[in-house]
Order: sequence, then C-alpha cells, then structure tokens
Amino acid sequence: MADLQNCDFCSLNPLELFEQVTAQGEKVRSLKAEKAPKDDIDTAVQLLLSLKLSYKTATGEEYKAGSPPTDFTPVSNGPGDTEDNDFVDPWTVQTSNAKGVDYDKLIVRFGSSKIDKDLINRIERVTGHKPHHFLRRGIFFSHRDMNQILDAYENKKPFYLYTGRGPSAEAMHVGHLIPFTFTKWLQEVFNVPLVIQITDDEKYLWKDMTLEKAYQCAIENIKDIIACGFDINKTFIFSDLEYLGMSPGFYRNIVKIQKHVTFNQVKGIFGFTDSDCIGKISFPAIQAAPSFSSSFPQIFNNKSNIPCLIPCAIDQDPYFRMTRDVAPRIGFSKPALLHSVFFPALQGAQTKMSSSDPNSSIFLTDTPKQIKTKINKHAFSGGKDTVEEHRKYGGNCDVDVSYMYLTFFLEDDDKLEQIKQAYTSGALLTGELKKALIETLQPLIAAHQQRRKQITDEIVKEFMTPRKLAFDY
Amino acid sequence: MADLQNCDFCSLNPLELFEQVTAQGEKVRSLKAEKAPKDDIDTAVQLLLSLKLSYKTATGEEYKAGSPPTDFTPVSNGPGDTEDNDFVDPWTVQTSNAKGVDYDKLIVRFGSSKIDKDLINRIERVTGHKPHHFLRRGIFFSHRDMNQILDAYENKKPFYLYTGRGPSAEAMHVGHLIPFTFTKWLQEVFNVPLVIQITDDEKYLWKDMTLEKAYQCAIENIKDIIACGFDINKTFIFSDLEYLGMSPGFYRNIVKIQKHVTFNQVKGIFGFTDSDCIGKISFPAIQAAPSFSSSFPQIFNNKSNIPCLIPCAIDQDPYFRMTRDVAPRIGFSKPALLHSVFFPALQGAQTKMSSSDPNSSIFLTDTPKQIKTKINKHAFSGGKDTVEEHRKYGGNCDVDVSYMYLTFFLEDDDKLEQIKQAYTSGALLTGELKKALIETLQPLIAAHQQRRKQITDEIVKEFMTPRKLAFDY
Repeated sequence: MADLQNCDFCSLNPLELFEQVTAQGEKVRSLKAEKAPKDDIDTAVQLLLSLKLSYKTATGEEYKAGSPPTDFTPVSNGPGDTEDNDFVDPWTVQTSNAKGVDYDKLIVRFGSSKIDKDLINRIERVTGHKPHHFLRRGIFFSHRDMNQILDAYENKKPFYLYTGRGPSAEAMHVGHLIPFTFTKWLQEVFNVPLVIQITDDEKYLWKDMTLEKAYQCAIENIKDIIACGFDINKTFIFSDLEYLGMSPGFYRNIVKIQKHVTFNQVKGIFGFTDSDCIGKISFPAIQAAPSFSSSFPQIFNNKSNIPCLIPCAIDQDPYFRMTRDVAPRIGFSKPALLHSVFFPALQGAQTKMSSSDPNSSIFLTDTPKQIKTKINKHAFSGGKDTVEEHRKYGGNCDVDVSYMYLTFFLEDDDKLEQIKQAYTSGALLTGELKKALIETLQPLIAAHQQRRKQITDEIVKEFMTPRKLAFDY
Repeated sequence: MADLQNCDFCSLNPLELFEQVTAQGEKVRSLKAEKAPKDDIDTAVQLLLSLKLSYKTATGEEYKAGSPPTDFTPVSNGPGDTEDNDFVDPWTVQTSNAKGVDYDKLIVRFGSSKIDKDLINRIERVTGHKPHHFLRRGIFFSHRDMNQILDAYENKKPFYLYTGRGPSAEAMHVGHLIPFTFTKWLQEVFNVPLVIQITDDEKYLWKDMTLEKAYQCAIENIKDIIACGFDINKTFIFSDLEYLGMSPGFYRNIVKIQKHVTFNQVKGIFGFTDSDCIGKISFPAIQAAPSFSSSFPQIFNNKSNIPCLIPCAIDQDPYFRMTRDVAPRIGFSKPALLHSVFFPALQGAQTKMSSSDPNSSIFLTDTPKQIKTKINKHAFSGGKDTVEEHRKYGGNCDVDVSYMYLTFFLEDDDKLEQIKQAYTSGALLTGELKKALIETLQPLIAAHQQRRKQITDEIVKEFMTPRKLAFDY
C-alpha cells in the first residue's frame, strides 16, 4: 500500500506552478495574436485550464496574474470544505493542527462510519475477547460494513482479512506495526485466513527505484511483517511483482476491475494527470483485486464470494472506495474496512511518520541508544518552556508526541491514565514522560529484532508460496 | 493484436457528437450566465473543447453551431495531412479509394521504410531462399530495421519472431492467415524461435465479451494458427489471460514499459480519451512486452538482449512505434518490423476484412459452397456492366477484389500474370475471374480444415506451455 511520498502532481511547488501558468498564459495570448490554427489554440487553452486547476489545488487560491504565492498552505481535499486544513490521500497527509488530522471530519468527508461504543461492544460480545486497545482508544476509529462481517461471523459464515504494505525502504518504522499488530489480533480472535499484499510494483512506479530494489525491499519488509507473529498456516504474503506472474486468477480480477474504471474516475479519486505514466493510472486495480477471494484460488478453492475485511490506515480508503464502487458491477461483494488514524511523526502530528526521513521515525532497526536519543531530541513536546511553568500550568497531552506514542504502545490502561493526569497537572515533567516512552519502546523493539532474527529464507518462502491454508472452503 | 472494431472513441457517430457539442455549449453559456463557480465553468469548457476536437477528428471539419454533419467522411489521421482520406489505427482502417489505402503515403506518415528490390534481393542472398510471394508482390511492403536483423543473421547472432492475434471471434477469416503464412515462411528460412501472443485480455477490454468467452475464442483461434503448420519445437503460443499469470518475467517487462509511457503519449498514439477505462489505457504495454526476450525467460534462458522481428499488418505499427520509443529507455533493443497491407473486405478495398461482418469475409470454417456463393455474390468487381462493354474496354484489376485475393493466394506468378492480362484486355470475364479465385480458395481452405481437425487439446496445451524451445541460448 502507498506510503507518504510525493507523486508527480504534488511535487511541483506553488511557485513553479505559478510560473507554469504564467508562461502558458503568454503562449495562449501569442497564439491568438498570430492567428494560429484553432486546434493549437484549443490545446494550449486546455493545458492552461488544467494548470490553473493544479495551482488552485496546491494553494487553495485562484491564480492571479502578477501575484505569485507567498507561502505554501496545505489545503483541504474535501468537497467544498474551506474551514479545515487537512489534506489526505494515499501519498500525502498534512494538517496545520498540532493535534493531527480532524478524524471526525474525515469520516464525514469520506462517507465512512465511526467505530462507536456499540460496535466495540458487539465485537467483544461476538468474539468473547476484550477489544484491542487500538479499538478502545480510537486508534481504529472508522469502518465500512463491519456489522456485515460480524453478521457473517455470527452465522458461522467465513470471511478473510486483507492488508498490505508499500515497501518504500528496507527498514520499517514503529508506525508500520500498527496495521499489522491489529490485523494479527483480528486473525487470532476471529480465526480467519489473511492475505498481505506487498506493492513492490507500486513503489517501482512511483519512486526512483529499480525493480530489483523494490523486490528486495519487499523481502526485507516481509521479514518484519512475519516477525509480528502471524500464523504461517493461516497467512499468505505476496509481492505483486512475483504473485501477479504466478496466478492467472489474480490477473483476471485485475483486468475485470480495469475494464470498469475510467481515467476520469482515477483522476477524480487519486488526482492523476495526463502526464502520469500508464502504470500509475492502472495501478489502483492491483491494490483493489485482493479484496476479491477469487484472486486467491489456491486458498479459497476458486470461490469468488468469500467476504473480505481490510484493516488499514485511513489514507488507503480512496483505493477501497473505488473497489467498493466496482465490486457489484463485476459480480463481487464489497470489502468491509476498518480504518486507523495516522501514526504521527516525532516532530508532531501534522503529518504521518515517514521512512524517508530518518529523524521523523523510530525504525525497527534502531538500537536502544538511538531510540533514546531520537525521542529525547526530536519528539515534539506538549510541556512548558521551564520547569517552573510546567509545574504550574501542566503539559498538553493533545499535542505531545511522546504521550501519543504511549497511547499506541503502552497497553496498560491504568498506567496510561496515570501518566496523562500527572503530565496534565504538571507533576510529571517532559523528560520523565519521554523516559516512560523510551522504556516502553526499547524492550518492544528489542523483542521484535529478536523475533526477526529467527526468520529464515525458508520461512519467508513458505509464507510467500501460493498454497492451501488451514481452512476448508 | 487489435482487429477492426469500434473503440469508445470511434463509436460515437458524427451526429451524436454534434449533439453532444451543442448541449455542452449550452451548458457553458448557462453556467457563465448564472455566474457559476469558476472551477465548474473551467471544467465545462474543457469538456466542450475536447468534444469539439473529437467532432473534428470524426468529421474532418470544425464544429459549426446549427450545421449538423450531413454525411460521415472518413478522414486522415496523418499530421496535418488534408489531401488523402485514409484513416489507419489498430481499430479502424478506412479509405475512400477503391484501390485501398495509399501505402506509399502511409510509409511517409508512419516514418517506416519501403521494402525495396535491394532488401528483397538481400533476403534472398542471405537465406538462400526465393523470396515469398508476399515480398515479391508488395504484400509485405514496409519495414523498420530489417537490415539489422539480416546483419545479425549473417553474423550468426540469434533473433526471434513475434506476431499475434486479437481473438475477436471463434472463427478466423482468410485474411487472418496472411501474417501467419508469412511468419511460418520466415521461421523456416531463418530457423528461429517464434512467440505468438493472443490478446484475449484486449478483446475483453474492448468488446462486450466475458473473460471466459475471450479465452475460449483464444483457444479456437490458436487451433487455426497451429493448423498453419508451425513447428511445435520452435513455437510458443500464449493467451495473455493465462501467460501473464504464469511468468513474473512478462509482468516485470510490462510494468517497466508502463512506467515509461504517459497517458499523454497513449492519447496521442491511440486516441484514448479520459472516458476510456484504465485497462485500455495500460494495455499497449502488454502488446509491447513480447518484443523483449526477457518476457520469455524459459525460452531465452533469461537473456534480455535477443533481437526481435515482428511481422504484422501495418495497423499494428502504433503499438510498436511506442515500443521502439520506450526500448532504449529501459535498456532493451528496439524490435524490427515487417508490415503487410490490409486484407480487403469482399465488398472492396476501402476497409479491411472483418470477422464481425459474416458477409465481408470468407471464413476458415466456410464450406466450398459458401465460398462460391460469397465470392459470386459479394466480391466487388472491377468488370464492366455488360459483357459487350467488358470485352471492349476490359476489367480493372486495381479495384477488383477477386483479383486482389488471387495476389494473396495464387502462388504461381505466371498464372497470375495471365489472369491479369486477360482480365484487363477483356478476354476474361468477371465470372471466370471469380471462378479462378473460387478454385484457388476452396482446396486451400479444405486443406486448412483437414489440418485443423488433427489439432488435439494436447497439442494446443503443448504449444501453450512455457518451455525451452529447440534452440540453445
């Protein structure tokens, strides 16, 4: 799945766009002046209009001749929404709010449903397990059709889980654990098969990366994913570059989806432009296809009607909105979804953690010392400037990144609540809060590294072999 | 490979387009009148401009409000060429000239090279075989880089052949034999491996056809292709729907090509629009990929530098112009090409024979009686209206379809020349010319049907199995 990175569309900065619009305007004027063929003028005008559109998307303002943009302002991508400053798509997450993206607004904008107390209670009732702290704490906060999955489960009907990862680098960071940790929990409490897509083809298409490098990153990432503890008898992990050439069933579903989605649609959903390569334009079908069980004939015995539940970060939702739109038109059922919030960068919740910037992230390969240094040096603090002020006014957990990380990784609800109260009252200093996070992450990452060391090439190969899993269909 | 058929773009008739332009013009006016948001107006104007462009492409004239088109005029797709009336792309071949498309102009427009006497002599010298009558008679008339292939051959360097077919229907017609008959001859005289792509995925994407039906047509067509006499030890035939899911090497090349071709480029080459599905938009990469030997690791022992020669009808050239443009950018060599003329419909050389119209074609499944009836009833004649006039003025071989067919199927040069002279002088009547064609085609098709009957499912399966061929690399 896609990570934070620049697409061609986003990589032009507003000033460059401004200059392009200005130059194109000149061109149109001179073509008209010299009475050029109408076709040439039409083409030039078309380009001018789409440049203006891009300018407006990037800056939030109409292009005004002679008034270059002064500052980059991240903008809303909501329909007609001008109040909030959140921008969320599979490649970019940005907000001007230190508390992070406004997820309630995102639910309204994306048309999904909130995971409320009722749903969490139902999950507990149906599975007989205490809901995962990601559910209790609103880290998985939004869903589509989760009640249908629970209906199926109650009626002893099968379903399967699908999640994925875009292997943008060899090393993963702690934020990448979120969907996998939660998916592992879902697999255990529901006892269902799981497929994990590694979109190495996507990373090749989007990044300056060879096919070989993309595949190598896929394999390294797969080792980290396996180290999360997935059951080898119930889990199939695949690289697109490999599996697409191993399964006619997968390609058949891809081509079915590709027949039912137009360029206009992916343009609207993903912001693709005419200058994007045809690989990007058709890629969404490749991320959509694993939502349909017939993409895995060896697991599901060629059945095409096994429902699918996708746990993922909310920025991946555009892919699955498209998938859900196509599904009934090609005779399949819509996948259900569980959406998580983004994992904030160390520097603050305005954007998600990125594996491209080493200082924005705590990597799964970091040493205890690196973890300590990064948190102490880079973790954005909600504390006051001096100890005196902090003792007097208290810290702000809503913007404190160390506290946010604890909500992800400190499982003990009571301890977390104590920390919150102590920090808010000023009893706990920033250094002490950071120490609590360091002491939580160091053993967690060390244990992950221990497990990862045990993952042999044979184990990787077995997870990646298309095969029957421990279920009967 | 693509056949004559309507793409979305071509399927709107000029009147429908006229109505769409008019309605969109109204919409723009009313948006402006009601001072609608600038974005909405811009979008509406953009659509209006592209509709006008489509109208011009379809009619050859500017849209003029209030003046609907009176007649459909096929138009040139050459750059700025307004004199000739030929339109050639992978889905449409049309000309207003009864002699057929002007191939010399097409060579200039496509930027290919004429197959001249020198090249034909060199082929004879190098191979030690008399050139095939398709070469001698200008049926294969254009090429790209054929001299490089002959250089390689003279230097004992390997190359391979690649051709293909779009399985638009279960039954093939005699025109479809042309590339295969010639490819078989090339395979024999050069003794090289051959790959044949059956683009069932393309037919699924373009036509109102299920995946199952497209694959079924592929298998039926493959039987006819095998019946042309290809050497099972030297030939690999594949359905895209099947082989794409069997060979990571093939998909890797596809995704490489897809990264290096933009929507702008395929729009320019193939006329795709924003309303086309993303499958069509990315398909050209799938027809391009077999031009690179690494798409067939099992044949070429993972070597990526074996040169490729593609015999095909000239309407497929746009795919390979694109391929040749991409090749050096992904580290591969450009494929060489040999282009044939189109096989004319029975009704005349203005368009190519189509398997969709039963009366435009003589099918490989036709009985001797059907062949006789179709030729007598439908073959466009260059003869005069009455026997008297014919005896006096003679017939016109340049527009006579029966004579054209004989140039394809009557191998005896002397006999063909006698017929031409007798028909031109008026000594041979139209009925007699048709009889000569009937007597040529009846045994040829009967023999084909005999050979096809021998093709078992096992033989088909072996041709379609990715495997080592009888060559060492």
